[in-house]
Amino acid sequence: MVDHISGMTRRGVLTMIGLAAGASAMYTAMAGMGLAGTSNYKGPIKLEGDPKGTSVLILGAGLAGLTAALELHNAGYKVQVLEYREKAGGRCWTLRGGETYTELGGFKQEVKFTEGNYLNAGPWRIPSDHYAVLDYCRRFGVKLEPFIQQNYNAYLHNSQAFGGKPQRFKEIQADYRGQISELLAKAVDQKKLDGPLTDDDAALLVESLKRYGVLDENLAYVKSDATSIYRGWAKEPGGGVDAKGEPSDIISLSDILQGRLWQDLITGESIDHQAGIFQPVGGMDMIAQGFEREVKDLITYNAKVIKIEGSETGVSATYVDSNGGTAEKTVSADYCICTIPFSVLSQIEHNFSGEMTEAIDSVPYASSIKVGLEFKRRFWEEDEHIYGGISYTDTPITLISYPSNDYLSKGPGVLLGAYSWGAASYQFNAIPAEERIEIALKYGEMIHKQYRDEYSNGVTVAWHRVPWTLGCYGEWRDQEAHYDNACKMDQRTLMAGEHISYLPAWQEGAILSALNAIERLHKIVTAA
Amino acid sequence: MVDHISGMTRRGVLTMIGLAAGASAMYTAMAGMGLAGTSNYKGPIKLEGDPKGTSVLILGAGLAGLTAALELHNAGYKVQVLEYREKAGGRCWTLRGGETYTELGGFKQEVKFTEGNYLNAGPWRIPSDHYAVLDYCRRFGVKLEPFIQQNYNAYLHNSQAFGGKPQRFKEIQADYRGQISELLAKAVDQKKLDGPLTDDDAALLVESLKRYGVLDENLAYVKSDATSIYRGWAKEPGGGVDAKGEPSDIISLSDILQGRLWQDLITGESIDHQAGIFQPVGGMDMIAQGFEREVKDLITYNAKVIKIEGSETGVSATYVDSNGGTAEKTVSADYCICTIPFSVLSQIEHNFSGEMTEAIDSVPYASSIKVGLEFKRRFWEEDEHIYGGISYTDTPITLISYPSNDYLSKGPGVLLGAYSWGAASYQFNAIPAEERIEIALKYGEMIHKQYRDEYSNGVTVAWHRVPWTLGCYGEWRDQEAHYDNACKMDQRTLMAGEHISYLPAWQEGAILSALNAIERLHKIVTAA
Repeated sequence: MVDHISGMTRRGVLTMIGLAAGASAMYTAMAGMGLAGTSNYKGPIKLEGDPKGTSVLILGAGLAGLTAALELHNAGYKVQVLEYREKAGGRCWTLRGGETYTELGGFKQEVKFTEGNYLNAGPWRIPSDHYAVLDYCRRFGVKLEPFIQQNYNAYLHNSQAFGGKPQRFKEIQADYRGQISELLAKAVDQKKLDGPLTDDDAALLVESLKRYGVLDENLAYVKSDATSIYRGWAKEPGGGVDAKGEPSDIISLSDILQGRLWQDLITGESIDHQAGIFQPVGGMDMIAQGFEREVKDLITYNAKVIKIEGSETGVSATYVDSNGGTAEKTVSADYCICTIPFSVLSQIEHNFSGEMTEAIDSVPYASSIKVGLEFKRRFWEEDEHIYGGISYTDTPITLISYPSNDYLSKGPGVLLGAYSWGAASYQFNAIPAEERIEIALKYGEMIHKQYRDEYSNGVTVAWHRVPWTLGCYGEWRDQEAHYDNACKMDQRTLMAGEHISYLPAWQEGAILSALNAIERLHKIVTAA
Repeated sequence: MVDHISGMTRRGVLTMIGLAAGASAMYTAMAGMGLAGTSNYKGPIKLEGDPKGTSVLILGAGLAGLTAALELHNAGYKVQVLEYREKAGGRCWTLRGGETYTELGGFKQEVKFTEGNYLNAGPWRIPSDHYAVLDYCRRFGVKLEPFIQQNYNAYLHNSQAFGGKPQRFKEIQADYRGQISELLAKAVDQKKLDGPLTDDDAALLVESLKRYGVLDENLAYVKSDATSIYRGWAKEPGGGVDAKGEPSDIISLSDILQGRLWQDLITGESIDHQAGIFQPVGGMDMIAQGFEREVKDLITYNAKVIKIEGSETGVSATYVDSNGGTAEKTVSADYCICTIPFSVLSQIEHNFSGEMTEAIDSVPYASSIKVGLEFKRRFWEEDEHIYGGISYTDTPITLISYPSNDYLSKGPGVLLGAYSWGAASYQFNAIPAEERIEIALKYGEMIHKQYRDEYSNGVTVAWHRVPWTLGCYGEWRDQEAHYDNACKMDQRTLMAGEHISYLPAWQEGAILSALNAIERLHKIVTAA
């Protein structure tokens, strides 16, 4: 939009858009003109023009494949989708009681969660700047509820510090901020920082640090009612007699520094994690189900692709029954959108170009594990007043995330008892599921003493053992060298999926890559 | 608890509690023993012992009166409640479409909100450390949903800075934190801060500031992918070709300081506002309704108390019909719990002691106004990607709060279009409701250009004009001098309400004050 308006006044353009498309489009355009960051998502895709009976074969019914199938079908294409699993969604996957999951290596788990409880094995959050995902949720009527990323009452835990005792986030956060504010305010006040600041700014900086750090009139961060309002009280203010609050002790900056609990103070504040951030009510796969309702008839399930053959005029794919059949079937189409993860695609026979093959073979997939633990009661709420949010730990479980739904409910609840990646996750990958759960319990009880008493059952997903992805997400080693090649149409095939995006691992990346691919495909088809 | 266990080991006590009362009690006790801040709320009150037919007159059916009524009734007391309004709840009050509200001065408003929309005229949030409120919600089955206090995509607005253009919270927050971290990190690195830090701590402090402030290897906060991950991108990363994110420009520390937008960076982080924080699904008065279901039969509605007379043996209250009748009725009981706000009580004939009268007359009530605005569509979500949360402004509206419910819904939505107190609220008190709404629109459209196009209807509550409270909450001028006297039993009357607490304005204060009052009353009754 911005590029094309140089000949008009900004207001003129806005008025024009306002008249043509209604108020919402106008304000969205305002956002695009510098009033806010721009997005790759421009609203529902419009594929105008006749596809002339063109057929498209889509490999994979994860969110990228589903998006391509839905939008190409709506635009009049003949669409066929091959999906390895018995249902759509791919990594947009929720495990519920009564289901079974068999991982690579044969270990089979029965999910025993109580009705209503679940584990989002893959993506579990929708940031508010993931406009495409949000828009599809709106279109499908998928209800969203806030995901609590940052809970000031959750813990920061270092097994080697504070005697291994977890510390409340609010205490570390207030005390760290207060004490660094004190150091800077005093340095500025004592004119130790010659140079970078005007006198006026220096005075304002001190004033701002007093507010930001909750400093007293001597620019000190001290035990007081004022600081207890942020870090919590030793005794909370109450009602009636003897109800005055008692201020709490401060944790020294040295203890915080040595305990390294500052490491996760801003973890929840990246734009992909900061509030507002959502989860679908009932589980992430509500999104997959929304898509699936629209395109179910186009999908061939339980189809394990074993060969992809492109030519200048079309693409064919050969598949077998993913439950173990050997009978081969081959389907073909004018074009192909391939969303099969490169981790899997690199093991499939294909005739892609040398450049594309290099790209496919150059993307290792990240290791990640999740452990869902069901407990008999929500002790984190009842005993510890933690409602949603995440506790961080230096142990191999990395974090514990409390459910952002059904607050105050009396029945069993499911925690995310481990969500590890990289090195921490490898030790989980190598061992059976029940041992992974044991590890999650072992480290989790360092934070919550109730773990053993209250534990009921658990399930775990080690992403390197997930048969249809062999990893969590594409972790480009040399994106500069290969990414653009991976985006190119290779004979008649375009790649899509989170790995074909700069939003790796996110559903938004998968959807945006698919929209970008079909937009390019459609241009070629309608130009021909 | 802590005081009584000196003779036992801590583990011994915990085991004893665990055996006697089950796991939940044990962990709650752990919290009380220093593993977390202690609360005035010890769980559901237990009034053991025979009240011997004692009768209690409760004046006011707000949350304090309702709590006292419910618990005294459950304990076997004869309870009668006089309530000025036609329903219970007091300031726990939600306005919905179809209702009318007539304020002091006679101005009558019809609420025209669409079904499902509402304005919480009084309290609108439940902090997660307000254990008593949460516990009653649990008991009554009141469903809670997260209230979004801090939304990084909401605005900070100073009409005199940045050309009056609102700034995204995330940008100011990341840039302020980054640049103060840079100043301190460099000062420490260059050893300008002699004294307070050991070398080891100094090195750790620099390392921590690099992480906390998102500084580069030169300890500088610069335009980069790294900083854009926190403050937002100029162009967001996307999928397919041309999908790389473009980093955004930084706002200089000087501009932030001069614009004073640092003032509201930590407003959402006090323990009464930090996440987790809740609202009842459907409106705050779901709590009042929960109580009311239990004690409805004990309440005389539309009863305006005009006289309270205590003696050494009992208390009587005289009331008239609050809709304008003159016929006086008098009821009496052995004891009285008076929850009438001091602003009103000071105008009622009574024979309380001199000390109590001084206390009653010494508590001015805070001025506060709220304006609820219904718009035809949720433009803050659709155009600006703001889902819940609060924008702060230096204009008289003080803030705009976006609804923390029904995200992505397509119908009309209600904003809190002004929530002012103190000086800013006085100009609203003096003018008719429709002019207050006009002010809210005038200042609101400085932040949201869509205001005039999308506005549908509004309602406003100026708390100094609310007939049954004459103010928002008790603002003690000299709590030191009078609070303890106000808590004392005056002949046979005990005061309760948020004003008889150190949690002024909060529902938790009202409930805790009532629990404290009836506990003391019960001791006297059972000891007699």
